[in-house]
Amino acid sequence: MAITRLNANKRLSNTVVHNGVVYLAGQLANQHSADIKTQTRETLENIDKLLKEVGSDKTRIISATIYLTDIDAHFDPMNEVWEEWVAAGHEPARACVQAAMFKPSLLVEMSIIAAVE
Amino acid sequence: MAITRLNANKRLSNTVVHNGVVYLAGQLANQHSADIKTQTRETLENIDKLLKEVGSDKTRIISATIYLTDIDAHFDPMNEVWEEWVAAGHEPARACVQAAMFKPSLLVEMSIIAAVE
Amino acid sequence: MAITRLNANKRLSNTVVHNGVVYLAGQLANQHSADIKTQTRETLENIDKLLKEVGSDKTRIISATIYLTDIDAHFDPMNEVWEEWVAAGHEPARACVQAAMFKPSLLVEMSIIAAVE
Repeated sequence: MAITRLNANKRLSNTVVHNGVVYLAGQLANQHSADIKTQTRETLENIDKLLKEVGSDKTRIISATIYLTDIDAHFDPMNEVWEEWVAAGHEPARACVQAAMFKPSLLVEMSIIAAVE
Repeated sequence: MAITRLNANKRLSNTVVHNGVVYLAGQLANQHSADIKTQTRETLENIDKLLKEVGSDKTRIISATIYLTDIDAHFDPMNEVWEEWVAAGHEPARACVQAAMFKPSLLVEMSIIAAVE
Repeated sequence: MAITRLNANKRLSNTVVHNGVVYLAGQLANQHSADIKTQTRETLENIDKLLKEVGSDKTRIISATIYLTDIDAHFDPMNEVWEEWVAAGHEPARACVQAAMFKPSLLVEMSIIAAVE
């Protein structure tokens, strides 16, 4: 069964498709020092773009793992942006925990598994 | 290929089935301030219930990711309850790391992937 | 659909195969007090061994979740070893976050999903 890898660098592929399922690398904001709402919005836009490229979209997300650097401060504002964005009736399984990223100014990271077929 | 979503709210679905695999949202205890053994037991009971609803059970779990708020204090008592619960001969792949949840009194969260077919 | 479990103990199976996909338990170094580069190397060797046993290999890895106890100190040296090891053109989707393990001397843990078929 074929594996398709897109948007790769020497460390990871942002997009990997296998057997009708796409796995995205942990997505981040473009502006690493923006506030949590902006970082969440940009992360979700990056997810939209990557899913679109393989013929999927946010209505096809199966699972999301969300890492927040400061869950006490950022759980509510992240959820506000998330709930505006998520497709009603197509909410994924989701876990959200606190974990730091490789730059202290990064506030949110999201790992996504979605259906392509 | 169809995606089935159950036990959903505006943020997430607790149960998502795609291509013979069920993904559960991060499961928690019902009593957010109980001790680690009680929280582990309740979390596992919630997993049992969700799996049963889609025709799966603990003998069909493929993978578990366990988050503990205080891994030094709670790894051993969590494992004690886990080992009583897990179906002998059907142990899933498992990772267990320390990560805080959205309420400080939450001590354990578990993300589960299981086979339905 | 059959589930195959290998390298199991009473808590987890290090290898679980379902529907052409293998899920590995969170892999660790053998020497729990070695430096980050040695721990990364040993973890990757353990992954190679487990994948080989089910007819897969590092060119077939779909997704990797990497936990580092100290991401500020260890992100760069971990990546150095990772990039020497990863199969060019076959880079997996990857997330890397900070999370402590059950022994303070453990510096890195990796959860792997790979294609068997």
